[in-house]
Amino acid sequence: MSQAQPVIAIYPGSFDPITRGHEDIARRTLRIADRLYVAVAYTATQAKKSLFTVEERVGIIREVFAGDDRVEAVAFRGLMVDFARDRGARFVIRGLRAVSDFEYELQLAQMNRELWEELETVFLAPELEYSFLSSSLVREVAGLGGDISRFVSPPVMKRLRAKLGG
Amino acid sequence: MSQAQPVIAIYPGSFDPITRGHEDIARRTLRIADRLYVAVAYTATQAKKSLFTVEERVGIIREVFAGDDRVEAVAFRGLMVDFARDRGARFVIRGLRAVSDFEYELQLAQMNRELWEELETVFLAPELEYSFLSSSLVREVAGLGGDISRFVSPPVMKRLRAKLGG
Amino acid sequence: MSQAQPVIAIYPGSFDPITRGHEDIARRTLRIADRLYVAVAYTATQAKKSLFTVEERVGIIREVFAGDDRVEAVAFRGLMVDFARDRGARFVIRGLRAVSDFEYELQLAQMNRELWEELETVFLAPELEYSFLSSSLVREVAGLGGDISRFVSPPVMKRLRAKLGG
Amino acid sequence: MSQAQPVIAIYPGSFDPITRGHEDIARRTLRIADRLYVAVAYTATQAKKSLFTVEERVGIIREVFAGDDRVEAVAFRGLMVDFARDRGARFVIRGLRAVSDFEYELQLAQMNRELWEELETVFLAPELEYSFLSSSLVREVAGLGGDISRFVSPPVMKRLRAKLGG
Amino acid sequence: MSQAQPVIAIYPGSFDPITRGHEDIARRTLRIADRLYVAVAYTATQAKKSLFTVEERVGIIREVFAGDDRVEAVAFRGLMVDFARDRGARFVIRGLRAVSDFEYELQLAQMNRELWEELETVFLAPELEYSFLSSSLVREVAGLGGDISRFVSPPVMKRLRAKLGG
Amino acid sequence: MSQAQPVIAIYPGSFDPITRGHEDIARRTLRIADRLYVAVAYTATQAKKSLFTVEERVGIIREVFAGDDRVEAVAFRGLMVDFARDRGARFVIRGLRAVSDFEYELQLAQMNRELWEELETVFLAPELEYSFLSSSLVREVAGLGGDISRFVSPPVMKRLRAKLGG
Repeated sequence: MSQAQPVIAIYPGSFDPITRGHEDIARRTLRIADRLYVAVAYTATQAKKSLFTVEERVGIIREVFAGDDRVEAVAFRGLMVDFARDRGARFVIRGLRAVSDFEYELQLAQMNRELWEELETVFLAPELEYSFLSSSLVREVAGLGGDISRFVSPPVMKRLRAKLGG
Repeated sequence: MSQAQPVIAIYPGSFDPITRGHEDIARRTLRIADRLYVAVAYTATQAKKSLFTVEERVGIIREVFAGDDRVEAVAFRGLMVDFARDRGARFVIRGLRAVSDFEYELQLAQMNRELWEELETVFLAPELEYSFLSSSLVREVAGLGGDISRFVSPPVMKRLRAKLGG
Repeated sequence: MSQAQPVIAIYPGSFDPITRGHEDIARRTLRIADRLYVAVAYTATQAKKSLFTVEERVGIIREVFAGDDRVEAVAFRGLMVDFARDRGARFVIRGLRAVSDFEYELQLAQMNRELWEELETVFLAPELEYSFLSSSLVREVAGLGGDISRFVSPPVMKRLRAKLGG
Repeated sequence: MSQAQPVIAIYPGSFDPITRGHEDIARRTLRIADRLYVAVAYTATQAKKSLFTVEERVGIIREVFAGDDRVEAVAFRGLMVDFARDRGARFVIRGLRAVSDFEYELQLAQMNRELWEELETVFLAPELEYSFLSSSLVREVAGLGGDISRFVSPPVMKRLRAKLGG
Repeated sequence: MSQAQPVIAIYPGSFDPITRGHEDIARRTLRIADRLYVAVAYTATQAKKSLFTVEERVGIIREVFAGDDRVEAVAFRGLMVDFARDRGARFVIRGLRAVSDFEYELQLAQMNRELWEELETVFLAPELEYSFLSSSLVREVAGLGGDISRFVSPPVMKRLRAKLGG
Repeated sequence: MSQAQPVIAIYPGSFDPITRGHEDIARRTLRIADRLYVAVAYTATQAKKSLFTVEERVGIIREVFAGDDRVEAVAFRGLMVDFARDRGARFVIRGLRAVSDFEYELQLAQMNRELWEELETVFLAPELEYSFLSSSLVREVAGLGGDISRFVSPPVMKRLRAKLGG
């Protein structure tokens, strides 16, 4: 195996919005990858419940990783494995927090393996202090007026305030 | 990040004996690493229950991966993180099968992160057909005279027969 | 206990659509039952999210098991235990894949036992290769244009194509 | 620590409707608390799916605990930790039934600890006979015409009949 | 499928000693089987930790089911699947209590399926009141002088008293 | 309920040795109890594997909580519920970290409830930074020469060094 080609990873998710837990996983991925796509999926069924549009979410991620040109924020339609293949990604990255995550993630990893055998799914554990975080918990606490500045980066705070009028 | 340096991974375990599930995890690791240490730990407390000695286990692993010079079978004493640092390993690889694995592995990953922050733990899911396999189940079935040729490689079969007199 | 009476089982679910995992569970049930009702529940709350109507789902199941007159596809309203009693079913069959399934299934089995003590709930494990499958995953992948021919039978494929216009 | 001040606990939830399992947790809490707020949250997102309005739910809880002036049924808006602080509550009470409960509850407890460090979350196990109960299961069975008189108290039965026209 | 042949089930375990939870599972099995072998395994590794010998355990089970000639207590050596085949058993019965049970049982069921595909593993849930019981908990409580008369049948009580000198 | 009587809690365990996670649980308990027994069980079966004797463990706990006369370190023989009753304890305290903890703890709580209905089991979550800690992990890392000063208090460090000759 030659390392002439860069190692490309994809980190798919809904990121509504991206939390410090997601950022931590992304930064850890860069220890084993040269380039990372943080990829927001267009999902018909989730569209109504989401707080930010897919475009807004991509914009936020772009701001969060501004200055690190190894990370690229993108949106994609269709199967994640097709997107990964198009971009030459060698593996998918997924964060593991809880057991309930874990089971769903194993199912998804297996389905993706069936759809394209060459794409490996790699699981990382977030920093302990972010192990309880989720986008939905952040949305809920922010919506109720709670202070979430420890859980999201400044660009996310700014957008949340604008959206929620806080 | 320059890829001039090879990406080195360590796959620690007891491997008593190595199963096709372990082999599958090792081969998947080589998609994201240039070099892999399959590392058998000397553990005072497990010594009595083990079927093969640490040296025998290293010998078996060596046979299993003969011909692939990216994989090296080694034994180590002391903390795994110290061994990893000595060998320049960038990440530790762990297979995830069941929820009970998962929780213990997260605890271990966190402890190792406390002991050496720079070492990342990377989790991979084994091939579905090996998802129920474990060394202890293999030892038990082999000890009762069951056919385990689908679960371990020929060099392991040979050693098991010699050990169990089958 | 006389075996003059046939052993009748009921396999309730939403089956939207039936997968090869469901089929596997049904076929395994026929090892311990003489007759099996694959029973689709009318559920007010799930009606909007479903891909196929209850009638379509019953029709698909009928096609899948065409030729095996031990299996009958039916729809039912109201409590499953009442339906089971009407049909003389001795036990309910449920597939177990993941831990999250398991807990919900235990709760449901206990509730059904409270509602009618004589109905036993029997759990079976699907074939390993279907252990990651679910109807919702099949719907999602099919909706995104992925190939699902390994996960559902030909009659299901045909209907999915007609429904999704693929 | 002086016990001159009464020990005040808060038991937050949706209670749609309160079950005998909830009542059991509440009564157990009074072994370690002098006063208990059973607190129904106003939640925008759950409003549509709920069977009873927040006001109805508070009314039902009031009837259930009529005669025990240590228990007060209340509704609250905003963050639970803010409500707890206002009322001088020393700890939050949560019932634990299943593993899936447990993980979500740990996440929530951690988030609440981040929001107000002085509020402790205390988990209790319900009586075994209520360990499979949930409000949603009660709603579902009642909606299908099943007998739920063992799972809820008479005031809840009366309201359910009025609501469902049973 | 003709029901001319009786449906034979096997319930393997260590039963050290048999609890009311085990008895409940056995009695439930007789709803779907005509004949049941409660089968105690000779296991070299467990020999030292066990309270009762294999022969004593078989004797206790025999007393517990005295009067029901559908149940036979037996001891077996070697692979359980070989014993099941010899006796013409169509399925193995296993009780499911907790998530940790569940995962190990799924692994075992899969291994047994690999060893003999025709043997089905059937899981049943014990009566709620026995859902927390285990032989080891019974041994521990009895050894500390606790009252375990609710958890085991009179023949087991008698033997436990004789063994522990209570 | 009059608060004239102090609220007494018992925190049973093996504490071999006590970690900062245990200390955190104990300190949190003092938010809802006036007096706490940290109680080390004499267990015949664990005697051989333990690092410290029961007496040493009690001595260490005494040093750790020196200066806080609300906490008393004790050893006990026999059933924990009997010890609790003797001391007038109103509830048992247990820390919850992982799902595997949780299931065993629920079983134990239920058994204890059967043995003495008046004793409530109260579960608390440790501080996030200790959520991965266990006495066995501490013993293992210390035995391999790792730095565990962040995981145990100074009196524990001193004793560990003396014991392990580090």
